[in-house]
Amino acid sequence: MLLGHEVSGVVSEVGEGVTHLKPGDRVAVDPHVPCRTCDLCKTGRYNICPKVSFLATPPADGALTRFFVHPADFSFKLAENVNFEEGACVEPLSVGLHSCRRARVGLGHVVLATGAGPIGLCVMLCAKALGAKSVCLTDIDQKRLDFAKSMGATHTLLLKKDESEADAVARLVEMLGDYPDRTIECSGAPSALSFAVNATKLGGALAMVGLNSAALPFPAAEAILKEIDIVGSCRYANTWPTIIDMISMGRINVKPMITHHYKLEETIQAFNFAKSGQGVKVMIDCTRG
Amino acid sequence: MLLGHEVSGVVSEVGEGVTHLKPGDRVAVDPHVPCRTCDLCKTGRYNICPKVSFLATPPADGALTRFFVHPADFSFKLAENVNFEEGACVEPLSVGLHSCRRARVGLGHVVLATGAGPIGLCVMLCAKALGAKSVCLTDIDQKRLDFAKSMGATHTLLLKKDESEADAVARLVEMLGDYPDRTIECSGAPSALSFAVNATKLGGALAMVGLNSAALPFPAAEAILKEIDIVGSCRYANTWPTIIDMISMGRINVKPMITHHYKLEETIQAFNFAKSGQGVKVMIDCTRG
Amino acid sequence: MLLGHEVSGVVSEVGEGVTHLKPGDRVAVDPHVPCRTCDLCKTGRYNICPKVSFLATPPADGALTRFFVHPADFSFKLAENVNFEEGACVEPLSVGLHSCRRARVGLGHVVLATGAGPIGLCVMLCAKALGAKSVCLTDIDQKRLDFAKSMGATHTLLLKKDESEADAVARLVEMLGDYPDRTIECSGAPSALSFAVNATKLGGALAMVGLNSAALPFPAAEAILKEIDIVGSCRYANTWPTIIDMISMGRINVKPMITHHYKLEETIQAFNFAKSGQGVKVMIDCTRG
Amino acid sequence: MLLGHEVSGVVSEVGEGVTHLKPGDRVAVDPHVPCRTCDLCKTGRYNICPKVSFLATPPADGALTRFFVHPADFSFKLAENVNFEEGACVEPLSVGLHSCRRARVGLGHVVLATGAGPIGLCVMLCAKALGAKSVCLTDIDQKRLDFAKSMGATHTLLLKKDESEADAVARLVEMLGDYPDRTIECSGAPSALSFAVNATKLGGALAMVGLNSAALPFPAAEAILKEIDIVGSCRYANTWPTIIDMISMGRINVKPMITHHYKLEETIQAFNFAKSGQGVKVMIDCTRG
Repeated sequence: MLLGHEVSGVVSEVGEGVTHLKPGDRVAVDPHVPCRTCDLCKTGRYNICPKVSFLATPPADGALTRFFVHPADFSFKLAENVNFEEGACVEPLSVGLHSCRRARVGLGHVVLATGAGPIGLCVMLCAKALGAKSVCLTDIDQKRLDFAKSMGATHTLLLKKDESEADAVARLVEMLGDYPDRTIECSGAPSALSFAVNATKLGGALAMVGLNSAALPFPAAEAILKEIDIVGSCRYANTWPTIIDMISMGRINVKPMITHHYKLEETIQAFNFAKSGQGVKVMIDCTRG
Repeated sequence: MLLGHEVSGVVSEVGEGVTHLKPGDRVAVDPHVPCRTCDLCKTGRYNICPKVSFLATPPADGALTRFFVHPADFSFKLAENVNFEEGACVEPLSVGLHSCRRARVGLGHVVLATGAGPIGLCVMLCAKALGAKSVCLTDIDQKRLDFAKSMGATHTLLLKKDESEADAVARLVEMLGDYPDRTIECSGAPSALSFAVNATKLGGALAMVGLNSAALPFPAAEAILKEIDIVGSCRYANTWPTIIDMISMGRINVKPMITHHYKLEETIQAFNFAKSGQGVKVMIDCTRG
Repeated sequence: MLLGHEVSGVVSEVGEGVTHLKPGDRVAVDPHVPCRTCDLCKTGRYNICPKVSFLATPPADGALTRFFVHPADFSFKLAENVNFEEGACVEPLSVGLHSCRRARVGLGHVVLATGAGPIGLCVMLCAKALGAKSVCLTDIDQKRLDFAKSMGATHTLLLKKDESEADAVARLVEMLGDYPDRTIECSGAPSALSFAVNATKLGGALAMVGLNSAALPFPAAEAILKEIDIVGSCRYANTWPTIIDMISMGRINVKPMITHHYKLEETIQAFNFAKSGQGVKVMIDCTRG
Repeated sequence: MLLGHEVSGVVSEVGEGVTHLKPGDRVAVDPHVPCRTCDLCKTGRYNICPKVSFLATPPADGALTRFFVHPADFSFKLAENVNFEEGACVEPLSVGLHSCRRARVGLGHVVLATGAGPIGLCVMLCAKALGAKSVCLTDIDQKRLDFAKSMGATHTLLLKKDESEADAVARLVEMLGDYPDRTIECSGAPSALSFAVNATKLGGALAMVGLNSAALPFPAAEAILKEIDIVGSCRYANTWPTIIDMISMGRINVKPMITHHYKLEETIQAFNFAKSGQGVKVMIDCTRG
């Protein structure tokens, strides 16, 4: 099976009736291929279409290949000043933007993203573009936090193994000057959801992105008494044109995340390197040598 | 300390400037006395005002007394055909209505309420008034379910001790013909939240009302992949006039819940009886002999 | 060109991959055939898809024929106790429901529908199903108002030629006991929009449905100072299953609107009769002899 | 009667129980003094409270005075790097922000503001802070448009007396590359509302701010068929802290609007100058000599 769902490329052929694209156009693709006929598709939530096909999700192949076929309306023209690698990053940025939309991140908000991996970084970039006043990332790895700060995080908090949740929340609030209005849980760490609920402001909102298949401990009474909205955020819908515009205008600068570059022939090396955790986004160039 | 926060009565005096009430008027009262000046009060969420005073919540006394003072704008005139006992029930009905609003219960929805106690019954009455197509209550006590059915629940499901969550969900879905669009967790039972998340439809919503101070097991991945909204619902805000109207018009019939009647002098007996679990709503008449 | 966009019928054949319908099923159809690929389709607003094809809207033919082809996902199975004529009425009821949704009609609302033609009647039926406390219809024809009352309107107001707008609003408010929370403008009459804005409550909402291609006089300052939402409502989206359920459950009783019955061979007589204004919904049976 | 409702100053005394302010604090004030008890206050819409008192709106005096009394919770501490004149500008910026919120201006939107006066400029500053992709101002005065461009408008369109509405819309769309997603009508000009409706994108939204007491021509069919939301926007609610933050962080730069400075003793000259239309925001310093 082929992997690859963060994709940009050049249009080589278009189907009948396609007018917004032509061969030679540079595009990034939303990897969804929804059924277009179910209730969820018809109410604007194609991301949770029960019949959706998605690049690199079995049985669908991914895009680590020279050529592949994709619906024209899920292929979006890149602005001239957005390169292919930035184009491939529209996918993780879409995860970030969708979660921020789900949590209703807005102007002046204090935002917390738990987990400073690629998704946390993308959440941070999108929250700032949406007008957040500050964005704090938490992690257990200081190096990731330093990287986040270099990319624009206004605050970072290193979580300590032995610290109680209450103490960690207290440190966070002292640093931020307030509880976060909005929280995006990006890590999937077993303790992160409980921390996120406890950290979120009275009346605030929390989007969950990081997947963990276990039953996680959840402080329900806290969520009820603070009347928090806790929303699942699954992939993304209707994000590509907006993010391409934001990259093109310099409002989102994703370039620092793109740390390493390989060719299609070096795919195995690229995956091995990515597994080592030394890079952030490791790119594979699928053009012919 | 005095108890009592489900209250109706007669106005004996009004303050200066009060024009919508006069001595002799029959009213029901919203037990909140919010600060009116914090951000939450000023954005319409007085129920989670951090400085709120609330009847019978220390240090505030409750209303089990002949006379008490309450803000005029939280005192709502009863329609002529709504009696004092129905008036006292506007409070628990408000818990139900607020949770249905928080979960965006609407026309044609299949609604699940977990727990068939007074709150579950009130959720059921409100969900039906909001146009729900069907309302199912779950409980571990068949008698409570029978009572719920007699009050208008379209479906009931007796939960069994030894049954797996998946099996219980499967029975529910088979009975309802679909997953519930909206779920209101009313029980606070340790396993109810997980059941509720697993039962709720793809793209649906779930309001949490039942309090349990423990960390509850929570199937986060399920909530993310189904992109469910899980919202805390704390008391209520802006519900009295609507519910009084609905009782007055016969769209909500709360009378069957009012099962027992005591006088103020018999308060201790009333509480002992209520504790026995034999009644549903046990009323105490505070008028003088 | 064939007319006909309020349609029900029997499935005679299904395409490959269709599993929710089979030959012999009784269905009602949503007349939209949207492009499914534009931004509006992908955000749940297929009703304003710029490439939509719609039954009986040139160049698309309508359904006054023995057989026609329609997408399976816009064909909805009728409940057993919903007959074909009620099924055909899901279309005008959808206009009503969509406008009520656009105006956020909800529990306990006082609703005004200006114009007591078929759309006004459908708005009234849907507003009541959504929990409106009262629904008032206005018209210049007392007979239409009497008919509306017989179908369930709680109030009616006969508009008089010589009366000022302010006087008409005053009569309305006196009758209803308050300004309407929500207004649906159904008539397209030149003066109706201004009346609707002036009648709507402070902070309320108004949906426009009735079409009039002229520039209508609009009291903008009134709309601003009362901070009203005035929303266009164009056809409908995602309404069929809900309305079929409501008819099936007896929450919406559309039968009194179905006043006359013709056969396909009598189509011209049917249209002539409909033009006379003597009936409300005039049905044409397209089955063979 | 005293005028003045765009106000900042120094706290000289605080009432009992006020803890967030102390004498000497620099503040800007939201000029509303709402009743805090009506339905609108209790649902977060104090700006349309029917009993609201507002600085400089008869019978309430304004703030062109050395000292005045104002509720502490409508007095907001200025950040250290926000000066008094910027503090006074939080009021017109609030008009801008509220209208953008009412029209749901968001990330990547193409925004049109009709009228390049102070409100149009404030809308432009707020729309950009909210993440708009482009903001176009229209006016009949090229100088105002040039000023708008110098303050950050991405596009401007000079409206011509003899041009048809259709032609003006066509020029706008050609310049912007698309219809505006969101429009804010800031001018109150008789023809501006119709232009705004015709310019706004299919499925878009339009907030009305500019007051004109006449009945304005309104293309209702256009609004219906494009299913636009047209919302009144009256003053503002809950905007001060966010705007102060945005000024403090440099995301909103209102300084160029502050063009002239007078002392309290020169109030008449200041008003005469303002009337001449040569300045934008003319400031009056109320401190003693």
